[in-house]
Amino acid sequence: MTTPPEQDRLHAQLAFAMEIDKLRRIVRRNTLMDGSRRENDAEHSWYVGMLAMVLAEHAPPGIDLDRVVAMLLVHDIVEIDAGDTFVYDASAVEAQAGLERKAADRIFGLLPDDQATRLRALWDEFEERETPEARFARALDRIAPILANHHNEGGTWSLYKVTAEQVLEKVKIIEEGSPTLGAYATEIVELSVSRGHLARA
Amino acid sequence: MTTPPEQDRLHAQLAFAMEIDKLRRIVRRNTLMDGSRRENDAEHSWYVGMLAMVLAEHAPPGIDLDRVVAMLLVHDIVEIDAGDTFVYDASAVEAQAGLERKAADRIFGLLPDDQATRLRALWDEFEERETPEARFARALDRIAPILANHHNEGGTWSLYKVTAEQVLEKVKIIEEGSPTLGAYATEIVELSVSRGHLARA
Ligand SMILES: [Ca+2]
Repeated sequence: MTTPPEQDRLHAQLAFAMEIDKLRRIVRRNTLMDGSRRENDAEHSWYVGMLAMVLAEHAPPGIDLDRVVAMLLVHDIVEIDAGDTFVYDASAVEAQAGLERKAADRIFGLLPDDQATRLRALWDEFEERETPEARFARALDRIAPILANHHNEGGTWSLYKVTAEQVLEKVKIIEEGSPTLGAYATEIVELSVSRGHLARA
Repeated sequence: MTTPPEQDRLHAQLAFAMEIDKLRRIVRRNTLMDGSRRENDAEHSWYVGMLAMVLAEHAPPGIDLDRVVAMLLVHDIVEIDAGDTFVYDASAVEAQAGLERKAADRIFGLLPDDQATRLRALWDEFEERETPEARFARALDRIAPILANHHNEGGTWSLYKVTAEQVLEKVKIIEEGSPTLGAYATEIVELSVSRGHLARA
């Protein structure tokens, strides 16, 4: 058996584990690739973590891929309290920042201090988008719904009346993290426009 | 833009990315912590990846945690073709092995060869359960449903008439990967029995 301080740590870790299970119930605007239903934050986090593993060579050389994966696994946990924000709703995106910081305090705060600090730092890094790791992680988070909408004849773009100009604005974030993925995203956005699945403003 | 061989690699990687999206549609017997619905393989993979990050200190010292996380992210991808097997259904578990190997050939085979080999090796390592990393990964994969059922007044145990002896058999796999987590799992299994949420044979 563990000694008492180890036991305390384990209990704090399990309290956090119970809490983050709720991420599976946070539903996003985006859908699965087949459009069959909206995705939840937990499966989205898995998906972008896998994208990181598979698309790593399109990141700037020398990147710490394991930190990218870790960042992507934790990046949406704050949405348990703050909910999902649709990236094309500018006023919501702003109001969201404060809510998300409070959520980060509460949820990462369930962990033993050293771990709370470490996971919070990963989330802060993702949000600040200053390191190459964070920029690549953000690029993947942004390209995933573009892939789904492209695959799905416009998907949530038509549903929420998003324009090509708005999508191309988000593609800049992809370019910042990975020029190759940015170029690819531009290509499929243009393809979606030419197929009539995405309207110009 | 990328040069043609890079473009080929990107296209293969994206074909794989499209394919693994289907993991979100593979539904498992186990439920979310609140019992509200059954979980899917994609969100389960995220969850156990997070457990690895949070419970790392209960693994044998010197373990490569990043490989544990990577292994857990890919461990169920074969179920896109082979489907989920309930761990308490012994005959199904055996028939499953061949199906899963075929699935691994097909799905990882969508990637460029070097990546197919690397991801396949992670899956093989997980399946073979010989390295401390694989044993720890397995322990997390096994403890997750025990946590959910314990939290959820017996959950799928009562539904599928699983006995305490059967669960304790699975706890051995947890002990192999992490004595601390094995001891904790034994504790909560006994607690579930004493509360009448898990029956003895
Ligand atoms: Ca988000």
